Amino acid sequence: MATLYSTHLSTSSSHSYSYASFTSKPANLQRIASISVSNRFLAARVSLQSQTNSYQNVVGLQDGAMATKLSPVEGGSPIKNLKEGLLSVISPEESKEAASFDISGNESTVSITVVGASGDLAKKKIFPALFALYYEDCLPKHFTIYGYARSKMTDAELRNMVSKTLTCRIDKRENCDEKMDEFLKRCFYHAGQYDSQENFADLDKKLKEHEGGRVSNRLFYLSIPPNIFIDAVKCASLSASSGNGWTRVIVEKPFGHDSESSAALTKSLKQYLTEDQIFRIDHYLGKELVENLSVLRFSNLIFEPLWSRQYIRNVQFIFSEDFGTEGRGGYFDNYGIIRDIMQNHLLQILALFAMETPVSLDAEDIRNEKVKVLRSMRPLQLENVVIGQYKSHTKGGITYPAYTDDKTVPKDSLTPTFAAAALFIDNARWDGVPFLMKAGKALHTKGAEIRVQFRHVPGNLYNRNIGTDLDRATNELVIRVQPDEAIYLKINNKVPGLGMRLDSSHLNLHYAARYSKEIPDAYERLLLDAIEGERRLFIRSDELDAAWSLFTPVLKELEEKKIIPEYYPHGSRGPVGAHYLAARYKVRWGDL
Amino acid sequence: MATLYSTHLSTSSSHSYSYASFTSKPANLQRIASISVSNRFLAARVSLQSQTNSYQNVVGLQDGAMATKLSPVEGGSPIKNLKEGLLSVISPEESKEAASFDISGNESTVSITVVGASGDLAKKKIFPALFALYYEDCLPKHFTIYGYARSKMTDAELRNMVSKTLTCRIDKRENCDEKMDEFLKRCFYHAGQYDSQENFADLDKKLKEHEGGRVSNRLFYLSIPPNIFIDAVKCASLSASSGNGWTRVIVEKPFGHDSESSAALTKSLKQYLTEDQIFRIDHYLGKELVENLSVLRFSNLIFEPLWSRQYIRNVQFIFSEDFGTEGRGGYFDNYGIIRDIMQNHLLQILALFAMETPVSLDAEDIRNEKVKVLRSMRPLQLENVVIGQYKSHTKGGITYPAYTDDKTVPKDSLTPTFAAAALFIDNARWDGVPFLMKAGKALHTKGAEIRVQFRHVPGNLYNRNIGTDLDRATNELVIRVQPDEAIYLKINNKVPGLGMRLDSSHLNLHYAARYSKEIPDAYERLLLDAIEGERRLFIRSDELDAAWSLFTPVLKELEEKKIIPEYYPHGSRGPVGAHYLAARYKVRWGDL
Repeated sequence: MATLYSTHLSTSSSHSYSYASFTSKPANLQRIASISVSNRFLAARVSLQSQTNSYQNVVGLQDGAMATKLSPVEGGSPIKNLKEGLLSVISPEESKEAASFDISGNESTVSITVVGASGDLAKKKIFPALFALYYEDCLPKHFTIYGYARSKMTDAELRNMVSKTLTCRIDKRENCDEKMDEFLKRCFYHAGQYDSQENFADLDKKLKEHEGGRVSNRLFYLSIPPNIFIDAVKCASLSASSGNGWTRVIVEKPFGHDSESSAALTKSLKQYLTEDQIFRIDHYLGKELVENLSVLRFSNLIFEPLWSRQYIRNVQFIFSEDFGTEGRGGYFDNYGIIRDIMQNHLLQILALFAMETPVSLDAEDIRNEKVKVLRSMRPLQLENVVIGQYKSHTKGGITYPAYTDDKTVPKDSLTPTFAAAALFIDNARWDGVPFLMKAGKALHTKGAEIRVQFRHVPGNLYNRNIGTDLDRATNELVIRVQPDEAIYLKINNKVPGLGMRLDSSHLNLHYAARYSKEIPDAYERLLLDAIEGERRLFIRSDELDAAWSLFTPVLKELEEKKIIPEYYPHGSRGPVGAHYLAARYKVRWGDL
Repeated sequence: MATLYSTHLSTSSSHSYSYASFTSKPANLQRIASISVSNRFLAARVSLQSQTNSYQNVVGLQDGAMATKLSPVEGGSPIKNLKEGLLSVISPEESKEAASFDISGNESTVSITVVGASGDLAKKKIFPALFALYYEDCLPKHFTIYGYARSKMTDAELRNMVSKTLTCRIDKRENCDEKMDEFLKRCFYHAGQYDSQENFADLDKKLKEHEGGRVSNRLFYLSIPPNIFIDAVKCASLSASSGNGWTRVIVEKPFGHDSESSAALTKSLKQYLTEDQIFRIDHYLGKELVENLSVLRFSNLIFEPLWSRQYIRNVQFIFSEDFGTEGRGGYFDNYGIIRDIMQNHLLQILALFAMETPVSLDAEDIRNEKVKVLRSMRPLQLENVVIGQYKSHTKGGITYPAYTDDKTVPKDSLTPTFAAAALFIDNARWDGVPFLMKAGKALHTKGAEIRVQFRHVPGNLYNRNIGTDLDRATNELVIRVQPDEAIYLKINNKVPGLGMRLDSSHLNLHYAARYSKEIPDAYERLLLDAIEGERRLFIRSDELDAAWSLFTPVLKELEEKKIIPEYYPHGSRGPVGAHYLAARYKVRWGDL
């Protein structure tokens, strides 16, 4: 469906450093040497595309990045994909696939259609992320954004709706209002049914008008309920695919309900799309500290010897929300916390954490290693799961509701709002190391973090100084994914003074203190990656299969046996069972 | 000379928690559980002494420490030395030696005589340190301080002199003036020649009066020039030793001028003192972060695999002063920077850094390991040394003098005020790892730090992102000994943002931010250790011999060949030669 449009053109030279936009002019092959010059950098995003005989370079470069011009490369030689700051080397075959803004003297365009434009996610995340990308000059010169939904709305009404959620969060430069106006002018609305090929065909016509004969690349973001996924994919594919560029579809979880339904969904999707066109988003993978996880591991020698069963005692993945479903539990009740958080977000982070060193940082190499981890894991056993559900709790005169007080939730629902699980990776690196997960709603705190607890010091000379609670005295690496991003390493330290007393201190990297620039939202990164065809942070279908096969048996067992969740008070630390589960594997949760 | 006074007494029970003083009442064996309760703790110093049949406990306990009472122990069983917060287990034999404040129904006393009381060190460091110990209730109940010097002075004059340098630096509690008055009342002065047994005998009489028949322990702090060391030791030993307690002598560097003179000094000292009585002070060993070095290494698993040639590329010990000799170069000119800083302070830190894990934290175990390191080192070669001397420099209209502009320094002096050296430890752990030292006066900055540079990441996936300067991208552990104590670990980190850019960030432990209590001066720790008989931070004579044998050959060669130092401008970064020396071993100084 995504056809490659290719042509020959003479090589001329042009580049822009002062602002970043997708220039349409053919440029020499340029190389960006990403040297860390300042911690107040602006993103250097680089895209490169190949033609048979020439290279067109699309450079986004802002202050803090240095550019070095190289000589043009002879036609036909393998070229380097400079995406992600010189990150990956791709084969000519792949580069064809990645070719994006193609030309025949003309320019290429990107049309982004947000299907389900009036939904919450679209308003809160997708439009703001698109604006942030525009604001940072990361979108191509020619782009159009379409909102698509069933309700009647004019372009002006859409713009009005969208404008309410846009903020100039980044660096608050003076031209924000101006930029916002420019952005909104490029947003349009098209009303249609999600299952109407005709309505999508109408959209196609409108898109074509905007594209004005240029090479057309199209991104559909499906922000709609799972039951209408396939219909929308079918219509978009059959009636609104690009004729001469690429067509990509971003889909959000849930990716099915278990192994079977997930496989069925994938099969249906593949009737209309190739795997290359499907971008399964897991927005946790777009989070700054999840991205940084691989950097920490693979670019710091000090972690290299530590990253195995020899030094690591256990690893914990902890997700907490301090609010309940609050009247919107209808969707959640069909899935529960294991499907909603563990099987995707936490498992994805686990796989990134535990994978072997990939051959390269290319998407396929990383995804290959992640699949290997997932396939080395034992399916979760019922005995290694604790489930909970929050109950009503009164504190300070305020009564917080139980999960089943939510009117959208059945009174007798057994759906877990909390779960803890112990997982194991049966490979040489991780044999015997418990990987613990914990996720819950309506807890006393909110946040997401990875905790790596190291083993005890063998023959510790200072044992008597540390006191009896040896577990507390082991080193711990904490990667706080949200909120208030930070990395810290708990070390034992002598308390200053005349005595010899040890305590645990933090070697600390607190992002807000170190980096003055606000951290981009996960959706920005992922949308940009999808536009650029970078699949590293998206989930491949075999990953999805492997993830489901770990959780499907226990999910079925929980449901068939109608296992009653352990009730915990709204706003508490969750069920006590989570502690017993951890204790069985000699683990103490690090967040307590 | 130090006799052990021992007696039998019945065991009664008494303990004081609310204030710390050396109680004279026999007490049950008490155990202090040093659990880190607060980071605003006050030192818990514990002394314990044994009698044949009973145990007297001397407890100094302040807020933040917890005390647990144990049952009395049967007579004759081995006892635990609770010094340093349950740190070490000592044999009954050692415990006898450590017995300090002995009793026969009576109490023991400590008399501290500062020989050279009118000197700079005494005024600036020793008296203030003694006051700080008093202020923190670390001195025994019965103590007397004597200043001893040649000039005539009354007690009142000494008190007046001393009072000018006392500060209530610690926590600035309200009773500071009161405490200062109490302290000064216990300071006295005795005028005498350093080589007069008669004058020391007069001192002895005075001390006896203060001791009032109690068990008498005596500490002499020799703060006098090296040429009168031996005379003073002889007189103190023969005329003013304790009759029924211990007598200890603290001596300051220089401990000789080379191997021969050092050996001669040791031999002379040992005519009058046993090795046990000699406390060779190296005040760097009393510094908080040097004390913490072993804690970091031996109580944190994460450093365990890293601490060897396999992961460490080089280690740097850097000392800088930002002022010159300033009219007081007379003493320095006889020694030079290598003897003044490298052969003692930096080498001591190196030995602590590089030693194997000791059997225990007892003084002899640690000193044994340090000696092994020193004996595994190659004597320093001339080609591995760069020497420098600062020259005059005019900056901003101000002319800073050359070293030889100092009127106390010969015009043609070749004495190095700067030196850099590459040292090697030929053992299994450190073979081939350069240990670099750099020390200088009149540099652009002041400070002392240890820098551990780790190796490159093998097969680094992110090489292209780090840029060409790979050396800068390796991990580094920095222990900043002074000023502004800190530990930090340089790691590579993803710069937040949409691109993939790495930079080097610090996992940081900044003492001032973490610990609100001021860090005690090195002299406090060391004086208290000497009073308590703790030798861990003092230099044993075989250590001293080994240290001299590393530096003596090159010192002789420098002097015999009249090697001309490389001149560097006052206030600069020192001679360029230091960089060439480092470059020869593929090292880049971490402080630049």
